[in-house]
This record gives sequence, structure tokens and C-alpha cells, in this order.
Amino acid sequence: MQIAIAQLNFHIGNFEGNLQKMLTAVEEAKTQGADIICFSELATCGYPPRDFLEFEDFIELAEKTVQDLAKAAKEIAIVVGSPSKNPVVEGKDLFNSAYFLANGEIKFVQHKALLPTYDIFDEYRYFEPANTFDIIEYKGKRIALTVCEDIWNIGNENPLYTICPMDEMIAKKPDFILNLSASPFSFTHAAERLRIVRANVERYHIPLFYVNHVGAQTELIFDGGSIVMSPNGKTFEELPYFEEAIKTYSLEEVIKGDQQQEQEKPKMQLIHDALVIGIRDYFQKLGLKKVILGLSGGIDSAVVAVLAARALGPENVRVLLMPSQFSSDHSVNDAKELAQNLNIQYDIIPIQGIYESYESTLKQHFWATKFGIAEENLQARSRGMLLMAFSNKFGNILLNTSNKSEMAVGYGTLYGDMCGGLSVIGDVYKTEVFELARYMNKDGEVIPENIITKPPSAELRPDQKDTDSLPEYDELDKILFEYIENRKSPQDIIEMGADEKLVRRVLRLVNINEFKRYQTAPVLRVSSKAFGMGRRMPIVGKYLS
Amino acid sequence: MQIAIAQLNFHIGNFEGNLQKMLTAVEEAKTQGADIICFSELATCGYPPRDFLEFEDFIELAEKTVQDLAKAAKEIAIVVGSPSKNPVVEGKDLFNSAYFLANGEIKFVQHKALLPTYDIFDEYRYFEPANTFDIIEYKGKRIALTVCEDIWNIGNENPLYTICPMDEMIAKKPDFILNLSASPFSFTHAAERLRIVRANVERYHIPLFYVNHVGAQTELIFDGGSIVMSPNGKTFEELPYFEEAIKTYSLEEVIKGDQQQEQEKPKMQLIHDALVIGIRDYFQKLGLKKVILGLSGGIDSAVVAVLAARALGPENVRVLLMPSQFSSDHSVNDAKELAQNLNIQYDIIPIQGIYESYESTLKQHFWATKFGIAEENLQARSRGMLLMAFSNKFGNILLNTSNKSEMAVGYGTLYGDMCGGLSVIGDVYKTEVFELARYMNKDGEVIPENIITKPPSAELRPDQKDTDSLPEYDELDKILFEYIENRKSPQDIIEMGADEKLVRRVLRLVNINEFKRYQTAPVLRVSSKAFGMGRRMPIVGKYLS
Repeated sequence: MQIAIAQLNFHIGNFEGNLQKMLTAVEEAKTQGADIICFSELATCGYPPRDFLEFEDFIELAEKTVQDLAKAAKEIAIVVGSPSKNPVVEGKDLFNSAYFLANGEIKFVQHKALLPTYDIFDEYRYFEPANTFDIIEYKGKRIALTVCEDIWNIGNENPLYTICPMDEMIAKKPDFILNLSASPFSFTHAAERLRIVRANVERYHIPLFYVNHVGAQTELIFDGGSIVMSPNGKTFEELPYFEEAIKTYSLEEVIKGDQQQEQEKPKMQLIHDALVIGIRDYFQKLGLKKVILGLSGGIDSAVVAVLAARALGPENVRVLLMPSQFSSDHSVNDAKELAQNLNIQYDIIPIQGIYESYESTLKQHFWATKFGIAEENLQARSRGMLLMAFSNKFGNILLNTSNKSEMAVGYGTLYGDMCGGLSVIGDVYKTEVFELARYMNKDGEVIPENIITKPPSAELRPDQKDTDSLPEYDELDKILFEYIENRKSPQDIIEMGADEKLVRRVLRLVNINEFKRYQTAPVLRVSSKAFGMGRRMPIVGKYLS
Repeated sequence: MQIAIAQLNFHIGNFEGNLQKMLTAVEEAKTQGADIICFSELATCGYPPRDFLEFEDFIELAEKTVQDLAKAAKEIAIVVGSPSKNPVVEGKDLFNSAYFLANGEIKFVQHKALLPTYDIFDEYRYFEPANTFDIIEYKGKRIALTVCEDIWNIGNENPLYTICPMDEMIAKKPDFILNLSASPFSFTHAAERLRIVRANVERYHIPLFYVNHVGAQTELIFDGGSIVMSPNGKTFEELPYFEEAIKTYSLEEVIKGDQQQEQEKPKMQLIHDALVIGIRDYFQKLGLKKVILGLSGGIDSAVVAVLAARALGPENVRVLLMPSQFSSDHSVNDAKELAQNLNIQYDIIPIQGIYESYESTLKQHFWATKFGIAEENLQARSRGMLLMAFSNKFGNILLNTSNKSEMAVGYGTLYGDMCGGLSVIGDVYKTEVFELARYMNKDGEVIPENIITKPPSAELRPDQKDTDSLPEYDELDKILFEYIENRKSPQDIIEMGADEKLVRRVLRLVNINEFKRYQTAPVLRVSSKAFGMGRRMPIVGKYLS
């Protein structure tokens, strides 16, 4: 038997586009001689459809897509993920289902049982868990259909669920497992995924074909990396990361298990490629092309400019250099050099005139007050306004350049440098931004060395350095990581060796700045805990604040 | 037996404050002669604690609060809601529990079974549902402890869950039901709550004491309105809305059921009072006092100014009047009159100088382009910047004045009039804003009549009116309501009589402006479907867009 897996980039709610993409893949699989082609989870409507699932109209469009796809299931069987209606009045109205289509019709449906409801996942918001498990027989082979999380409840020390769907299905003696996934990227996820797939194969001793979604959906990036694993635990093949792929495998060869092929997973390469596809898909799927950003001469905007140029092409990236009276010469020069390296359009627009007009307008009201945060923020906000004016005038969408460390502690100006439609590196700690810059320069200098080596500064007052108000980033990032990613208590972090006063100050800063993050653009997610939909915090709280 | 219910305003994560508040209530209940006092759901940590629940440290602080409270459970029993750890390794790590404390210790714990995971609720994100149900006997009475949603699965045509906890408990012959709730306000919710409590009493024929949380937690407002209901279905008493209350009832009197007392529920009064407490608690719980907003002379900012003055006192409200060359004289005069009526500090700051400095800075870059959205937004953003400058300088938090209709269709400037730390009327449609203004004027003119009667305008270009780019608000709001609150399809709405082209245009506007709403301040929730945490939409989608 020949099994094709189709790792495709779907678009939420674009039923017609998704259908056409799948029909093309079906034809391709046929030419590859496939008996079955398997698509990913919720492929008809795209993943995650979120509250669109509450619209009956949306569900009916998904059902129609399945029907249309069924018509193409001739000489080949099609496995596809789609929402389906729960016929029972009690419980949620929908299931998250895997459809088996053959001979022009729906032959079998298996619903998902384990509904991830943590971090960025909200599946129990919409779906009723499956309570029956069956397998489907096709061309003499018995197939277990599983949806994403359904194979993730084994091999954990702390299982999230009380049942294990494959334990139910294995009693019916399947020959192999198909898994339809939409499993979002984080830089440790590809390795974790292989571990889980292997744990299944080792437990059930049958091959597993794991089909993942690829491409970005707003903040979520799906890396593909679909897996074919042999019963002996060897990775028969891992499909490429961040690209579409359709490939057909001989079940007999996979069972033999003579092949082992896994990809390298270097952290910076993964993050880099993820952010590039994250930017590209955000714009492509919105039907947009052009971006703008402010180049300060600092490392954050430099890294974002490089990512944007690689994602969209230098001709679609425009930057503004907006020096104030506090900007150093090297800032403008470094930014210019970068723009020239990238071959992107740049304009230099000093903000002093605008700043002075605010000053004179506010003089009588701010009489006898000292230069302070209001004046610093006026500069950051003047820049934000200029960028937005260009955005409105020429249609370039503003990219946000805040990093995760500064977003965490609120070291940024709301409606100033926190402006932008998409936060590109808001899930990348400052220390990782440096690593990423080095990675970008590995085949020749793109980012001027001076941008990487000079001490970080917001340049909002004379001789300012980030370390005037923040600890060194390597110290800060360690504390942030333990608190944000690992949910450690202050006591835990102090016991790891961090300074008590510093820990309490940093965690307090994180918690009191929730209001700023609430108003930030969606953040491309590359870690296991990004700001945004996967981290839901009260603003009005009093915990560690 | 004497039963006290304590409808209190807790603060998320403020364990010490919540404990002290409960200890004071226990003393009060003792003086009232109570045998039992009942607090609301998750009273120890406040509701909703959201992802703070993922911090073990946070759970331990809640456990300690229960222990401290148990020590006070002498001569009186205490019922309190708090998270508790799931001792079983499979499943979620926590339960959402009702503790029964007596004789200085924890006597009994009943977990919540029905975990709301829809709209603003995320309970299955954190909690494992109860799978055992028992009752507690105290001073000869058998008591069924239920937590919020556990009594909500009856009397529905489309039950969300497959079990009904009270159906399990009733077999153990309880004498009465205690329900610990944290059920957020919407303007139809108090009536709905009474209907559900009554459906329970009619099914089980025993009294029900329903204890609700009161006060606001960021965007969620809890209205109190706790209920004591007799077995004959009469409302023995409904506690006040939007106020704390501790009151003791004789079980015997409640069983007799000779009393009927329910409150009026006029929509505008409820919305008004909810928004006042929403503002007040946001500031009180953050330890802040002073606000600022821009008064345009239009109805939205007028209504917000009145609400702010009533919530915080006129001495804590400051407004800026920021006319441009396009502002009409009456705008400034109307705004001035309102500020004088409210006795709040106002300053008039023309923005023309600032606008011109942008114009001259941008002239060479915008050469040969026409006045358009960029120039309109520059005005809105200059005002936003001035307000934020005052905010940074004097510590007044900026209130956002966008209404639900304009937020829905994206008729507002990101980083301009969409600035602000709290969106006060973002869940109030424009037609409702007019009703609210009329309600505010019912005992004498507060908002100048001209503000209510003149045609709405953003005044960003000569003679602009909202109806230049939007349909009349009564037509628009009907379409928005069917789409947002009722999740109707375009076809459904057209069949209700709306114009097809208009419907498609409006729904498209709603969907393509998701990116703007993503960056808006938290919106005080007064309807059954507010923008924000309760409505989760993809930005990069292609449904009706």
C-alpha cells in the first residue's frame, strides 16, 4: 500500500482556496501512485479557526468542503481533518474530526478525544471529546485515525488526560496509525514531536504517519516536519521544515524500517526560518506586501529589518531613520549602513521639529516640571506617528521591533516603539536577539558589527543606556525565563542563585506591565511560552506586584 | 439554622486582603447569629485568576488562606471557594473547589464538575472536573455544595454538558443547596440567573442560597445580586446589585417561603451602574485615582466623562479639549459646558501647531499626494500623544472613549482615539450610548442637549459626518448585534430584512478590523458578547472578508 502525506499551508476560512490546494495535492498523489492521501487537522477551514467555529455558516462551509473533496476520492482515499456537528444535544456542538473519504463518499469519521486546552489552545471551548473509537479498513489494511493530541498522552510523567485513545484502538488491531496534526512550532518542538511519535511506535509496534500543518496563522507558526516512523522506532523520513511537501511512502518499506533520516535542529536556524515564514504568511494571507519600520541603529530593529527583507524581498521593505537631539552619530550611520547592505529604501527624518512643537504646545501646562518619562515618550511616540503616517499614506504595514525582554519588563513606550501590526521578535529574548544577529552574519556581514557590539540604548536622553534602568540582559533573561517559561516562584529563582532584590523587582515589573502587553500586536511565537493568546494574565491583580 | 451569605468584592492575587475581608465578614456573621457563612467562588484568590493558576506558588498561597480561614471557623462554619490540587496524576493539576470549614479545620471539599469554557471563561484550561459528588452534614442539616456552573445545566434546550451534578447529589437527600458563584454581569444576566436558580428549586424542591461575587476585575464586572430562593420558587431575597452585602437568613423562614423580593432591572440603569463600578474598581485595585480623557464635544467622550466623574469624583477627572482647524465652534463650547457641569478640570489645547510641524516634516515625502487618511489620523494621533504626555507627566490614566459600533467596523484611529488604559464604553453600541446619555440626564441636564442631538462627526476633515462613511447607527447596530451577539450568517441577516450589500460590507469591515481591536485596551463587559477575551478571532483569516 502507498500512503501519501500532504504537508500544506492552509488559510483560515479560505474554504475555496484550501479545497483547490487539496484537489491539486490529490492529483499529485495519484501521479505518485498513492492509495491514500492524508491531510492535516482541520485542513478544510484552517487551524486555529477560533471563534469562527461558533458560526453555523462557517461549519456548513467546512462540511461542503468535505463533500466536494469526497467527490475527488476516486481511485484514491482521502483523509482530511474538519469540524463536524455533534448530533447529540448534550455537550458541545462540534467534534474535531478525521474524515475518511473513498469511492466518492464519506466512509468513516473518527473524532478527536484529547482536546488541548492550555497555552495557545482552546479546543474544549468548541469541541466535545470523542467517546467512541474505531478503525477503518481499506484495501485490506486496518487504519487507526488519530487527531494531533490523541497520540500525545503517553510517555509523559504528568499526563493531562485520563484516557489514551490509541490504547482503545490498538485492541482492534490496526496495521498503522495516521495522525492529522496542527502542532505549532516552538524551537524545542520538533525534537519533542519525534520523541512522542517514537513513544507511540514503541508502545504499539506499528508504523505511524504523522502529518503536520505548515505555515503561519497570525502569531502561530507551523513548521511542518511531518514524520513517517517505522515500527522499530527509526525515523523513516522527516519532511522539511517550513515548506509544503507531498510525498508517498510504501507501507511495506516503512515496516521494514531500513531507513533513518532526521533533520538537524539548530535553535537559531529554526527561529530564523520560523520568523521569516511568520512574516511572509502574515502578509501573503492578508493580501499585503509592503512593510515599514523604524531603524534606530540598535540591534532589535536591525534584526527585524533583515527578517523582513528575507521574507518579503528588499523591494517591499522601507525604513525610516528618525534621529533626535539625543541620537548618536553612529546610530544613524549604522542604520544607514544596514539599509544599504540590505538594499532597502530608507529616509532620514529628524524628529526635533516635531518634538519642539509638542514642547512649545505643552510648555505652559508642564511649567516647572522636569524632563522625564513624558518627554522621553514624546520622542518614541513622534517616531511611531511618523511611521504610521507613512503606513497610512503608502500602505506599508508597520512592523513592531520590541524584543521579549523589554516587553516583559515594560521597557517600551505604548503607542511609541510598541506600535506595529505584527510583533516580529516579541518572543525572542534580548540575549537571543544577539545570537540571531550573529547567525544572520554567519555567511558575511549583513548587520554592521558595531550594531551588535555597542551597549544597548533607547537614546531618549543624553548618554542613556539600557543598563541605567535594567540589569544586564544575561542576568535579566535568566530570571524572566524561569518566571515566564517555567512558572517558577520568586523563592525558586532566588534559590537558583539570583539576587533576591533583583528577582522581586523583575517579577513585579513583569506583572505591573501586563497592561502594556495587552495592547501589543500579535507576537510571532517561537518559544514554549510567548506573550499573547498563550499567556493570559489579569491586569488588575496583586500577585508579586 | 441561620445561614449568612457574603457578597464581597475580592481582588485577584491579594490573598492577605481577601483573607482580612473574609475574617471581618465572619465576625459580622457571628454577630448576626449565623451558623454558617458562605463566600463566593475562588474567593481566596479572586476570580478569574487566569494563568496565575499555573504558578504553584500562587496555589500554595490560596491553600494557606484556606488554612488561616479554617482557624476562624469556630462557633460558625465557613464555606469558601478556592483552587485545590488534584492528587491524581492524570488530568489537570487543579480542582475548582468549595471548602467546608468547621471546628478549626477542613471538614469537606466538593469540586466543581461543570467547567465553563466559552466566551470569557477558560476553566478547563486549569481545572479537572469533579467526578464524585457528596454532601456534608452540619448541625443536623444535610447541605449540597455546588460551584457556579454546576447548577446551570438544567432548564436549557441545549445543555453544554453531559452530566448534572445536582441530579447526583439529590439522591443523598440534602436539605438545601449552597451555590458559590462568580458569574459576570451582562445587562440580561440578573434575570437569567433568577430563571436558572428557580429551575433548580422547582426540580429539587429545596431552598437554594446563591452567593455571587461583586465588583470588577479588569474587564469583567460582577454585579452581586445574590439570591435566596424558597422551595416554592419565590425569591425570598435578592441582594443589591454592585454593592457588598452580608446577610443572615433563617432556613426555616426561607423554607416557609412567605416572602417575595426581586429588584427592578432597567437596562440603562444596570449598564450605568456596571460601568461606574467597572471604572472605580479598575483604579482602586491598581492603587490609582486620577484619569484623563479627551473631550471632543461628541457624545462618546461626554458619556465617559460623566461615568468617570461619578466613579472617581470630579476632582480626579481631567479633560483636554483639543480643537483642530476642522473642529466646529460648538464642539469646543459643548465640551466646555459639559466640563463645567461636571466641575472637572479642563484645558483647551489647539493641535494646529503640532499638526503643521508634522505636515512640514512630511512635506517632501508626501509630495503630490492628497489629503487623506494619513492626515486625518495625524490629528487623532496628535491628540492621543498629548493625552499620553499629560498621563505620563501627571499620572492620570487615559480613558478610552470608543463605542462598540465604531470598534466593530474599525472607525477609529489606532494609537489615536483608540488609545487608553481602559475602554469604558467599548461594549456599548452607539445607539445605546445615546440611551445612556438620556438616562444620565434624567434628573436634570448633565450632558448638554446639543451633544446628544447633533449628528455624530469625527471632525477630521471639513464638514465630515459619520454617515459619510457609515450607515445610520440604528441600521448598523442591528446588523452588528445579529452578527456579534447572535453569530448569524450574512444570509440570516439579509433574510431579516437588511440590505444585502450593506450586510456584506459591514461584516467585512468587522472581520478585517480584527487587527485594530487586538490592540485595544480591555473593554468593560456589559453585554453577552464583548470585544476582548470573550471573543477570539483570527486576524489572518478569510471568512466574510
